[in-house]
Amino acid sequence: MRDVHFFSIFSCVGDRMIDRASRLRLFIKEELYIGLDIDLSVEQAKYLFKVMRLNVGQTINIIDGNTGEYRAKITIKGTRSGKLLVKEKISELIKPPNLWLLFSPLRKNRTEWVVEKATELGVRRMIPVITARTVNVNVRIQRLKMIMIEALEQCGGTFLPTLAEPISIVDCLNFWPSDRTLNFCDESLSAKTDVNNFFKRQRNKESAILIGPEGGFTETEVQLIKQKKNVVSVSLGPRILRADTAAVAAISIWQNVDKNSE
Amino acid sequence: MRDVHFFSIFSCVGDRMIDRASRLRLFIKEELYIGLDIDLSVEQAKYLFKVMRLNVGQTINIIDGNTGEYRAKITIKGTRSGKLLVKEKISELIKPPNLWLLFSPLRKNRTEWVVEKATELGVRRMIPVITARTVNVNVRIQRLKMIMIEALEQCGGTFLPTLAEPISIVDCLNFWPSDRTLNFCDESLSAKTDVNNFFKRQRNKESAILIGPEGGFTETEVQLIKQKKNVVSVSLGPRILRADTAAVAAISIWQNVDKNSE
Repeated sequence: MRDVHFFSIFSCVGDRMIDRASRLRLFIKEELYIGLDIDLSVEQAKYLFKVMRLNVGQTINIIDGNTGEYRAKITIKGTRSGKLLVKEKISELIKPPNLWLLFSPLRKNRTEWVVEKATELGVRRMIPVITARTVNVNVRIQRLKMIMIEALEQCGGTFLPTLAEPISIVDCLNFWPSDRTLNFCDESLSAKTDVNNFFKRQRNKESAILIGPEGGFTETEVQLIKQKKNVVSVSLGPRILRADTAAVAAISIWQNVDKNSE
Repeated sequence: MRDVHFFSIFSCVGDRMIDRASRLRLFIKEELYIGLDIDLSVEQAKYLFKVMRLNVGQTINIIDGNTGEYRAKITIKGTRSGKLLVKEKISELIKPPNLWLLFSPLRKNRTEWVVEKATELGVRRMIPVITARTVNVNVRIQRLKMIMIEALEQCGGTFLPTLAEPISIVDCLNFWPSDRTLNFCDESLSAKTDVNNFFKRQRNKESAILIGPEGGFTETEVQLIKQKKNVVSVSLGPRILRADTAAVAAISIWQNVDKNSE
């Protein structure tokens, strides 16, 4: 499955079997630098040697989500272990604009879908926010991190967003940084607001997008949110979007506006 | 499940059990007009009377995806049947801007996800396009239509996009209408192009978005596409998006730019 992914994403021309190794991007948990010796985990060894059938001497691309992309050589190959040696840095870290995504955890695969998409589209930090109507308060942080890593490997990026522990909306607002604009995606504004104008004002500034749970925020929560000074209510269009659609649409729009200011 | 959806989407204030019937939106396949008598299907009767526990005399909102939204009264209630009478029109049809989505069918739930999102975000027509690298050529049109209907019921819209039968990319290009711009989401442009400028040029015009399969278009296909006169290559940002992410991001960006021209 994963094998198929790598091809599907990276091989846009000609024979898809050519140069599998050179197209591969593997996420490594430790911070990378030239000369570093990496011990592969059991899963990584199985993936490289059993699935991808790589051999000693071949090189692959590796990322740590925080320093850039490197080229590493396979120096030891085992059935359940192996080693890589970091040879050269091939790309510097490219951080996405300084955008956070605050989302209420949704039913299982919709949350997974949101973190996958947010990683591809580019955010700095994701924060699961628990509200009165959040149906799924049991957030599987480790599983979501795995999904983010897989999305990063595939999308060609070098920056892995951070995923915070869940926080209540009340605490989140209480501790909200005064210099970060909070774009509150407000369903009650459907069809009433010019989205772009709101988003434009925040170009190149620290920003965040807040998406509510499937049931929407309660009236009390809406009042709490709107009382904060650095909150901007935005509309995502004339229809009421599902929470997962809203998250992806809001990031896409924000990124696009932001991009054009650079 | 569906019950939960309706509440979650529409009850944003106060007691969620209040006035279930008035929040409900049911899709009816025949064209609606005031005075029309509607025979409910077995599924519709079960849903209204067993799940939602509605009774004769109560009213619900109904849509046909093509003429607007109406209020209808329950006139007969059975265990597997029932009747509605259309009483008044409460909203005119609101069509989204004239945008088509051309997408290569993806593995099952990713295709379903794309049509759900495209319905919410608003397109006029979806066309599954078969390319050399399309993995899933077996498109389940009826199931996808059901997903579109459910998305329409929930998002508060009145227009149901049409879903075309799958067509090969070659035929699609051969029969492409000369007055409709085709926005070709070209992965090779990642980070190189100013998206907004491309989209801006097409405001209020007939337009379409073309998203490739997970493996990307072949070089031959790319050449074919680019040879067409009314094709514009657009970039969706610096990372390589999955096909489903690309579809949703492209529609969101296009809709947002378009909206601000109105």
